[in-house]
Amino acid sequence: MFKKILYPTDFSDVSKKALDYIKQLKESGTKEVVVLHVIDEREIEHISHIPEINITEEELEKRKEENAKEEMSPIVTELKKSGFAVKTRIEKGIPFRDILKVEEEEKVSVVVIGSHGKSCIAEMLLGSVSEKVIRKSSKPVLVVRR
Amino acid sequence: MFKKILYPTDFSDVSKKALDYIKQLKESGTKEVVVLHVIDEREIEHISHIPEINITEEELEKRKEENAKEEMSPIVTELKKSGFAVKTRIEKGIPFRDILKVEEEEKVSVVVIGSHGKSCIAEMLLGSVSEKVIRKSSKPVLVVRR
Repeated sequence: MFKKILYPTDFSDVSKKALDYIKQLKESGTKEVVVLHVIDEREIEHISHIPEINITEEELEKRKEENAKEEMSPIVTELKKSGFAVKTRIEKGIPFRDILKVEEEEKVSVVVIGSHGKSCIAEMLLGSVSEKVIRKSSKPVLVVRR
Repeated sequence: MFKKILYPTDFSDVSKKALDYIKQLKESGTKEVVVLHVIDEREIEHISHIPEINITEEELEKRKEENAKEEMSPIVTELKKSGFAVKTRIEKGIPFRDILKVEEEEKVSVVVIGSHGKSCIAEMLLGSVSEKVIRKSSKPVLVVRR
């Protein structure tokens, strides 16, 4: 029921809080955690087209990927130390869509996600990534708060 | 972290499925479950004002309360058998508001709720009770699917 967790993270504080809940779920039978970060392709495209910013899409994507790997490393260490099998995935796409895609691909039992991500104002206007995941997920979702 | 669960139920199938998750959370430290049913005061008022239906608000409320008590009884038995302390509450009001109110009053650690209730069409138009709870809750929410 809680055997395999999908943990999508944008490395925000509330995402990090979700980690504590994952660790607690171990007692309820969690064996494996899939840590997922989605690089927002719309952001990449948008920023690389701002004339004042001299960066190509490729370069920005590469930097984002490197940053994601760096951010993921302590998370993986922490989860492994708690006794979980850990898999990491870095995807490029639309966050909520890729979260749902990976949820299916990895056949997870449950999703543990922060209630709000980093892009607070956009989320207030458009609905948060987590709200979209909750609405469309075929699996139970544990929403952790700030 | 999962010590005291608020379990709001409208006795729908997905609500009943949420029970299985609650039982599984015992291993993660759940001691007590507050089972809550909110009688929708708007529905009471609406139905009692349909001229073809010959029932007073008071009588309808009484019947709804009796029905809720009957529906709650096997849930309480099941939870007690699983070793939880159980408290039941039947409230009359607006479901999502009363769920949030009881969440505060009972100082629960987490809310476990079905993704959709019985009133599917209204929920598709207006957003489900669970969506409103998720958005406004100050506690983590585990959303269980059909």
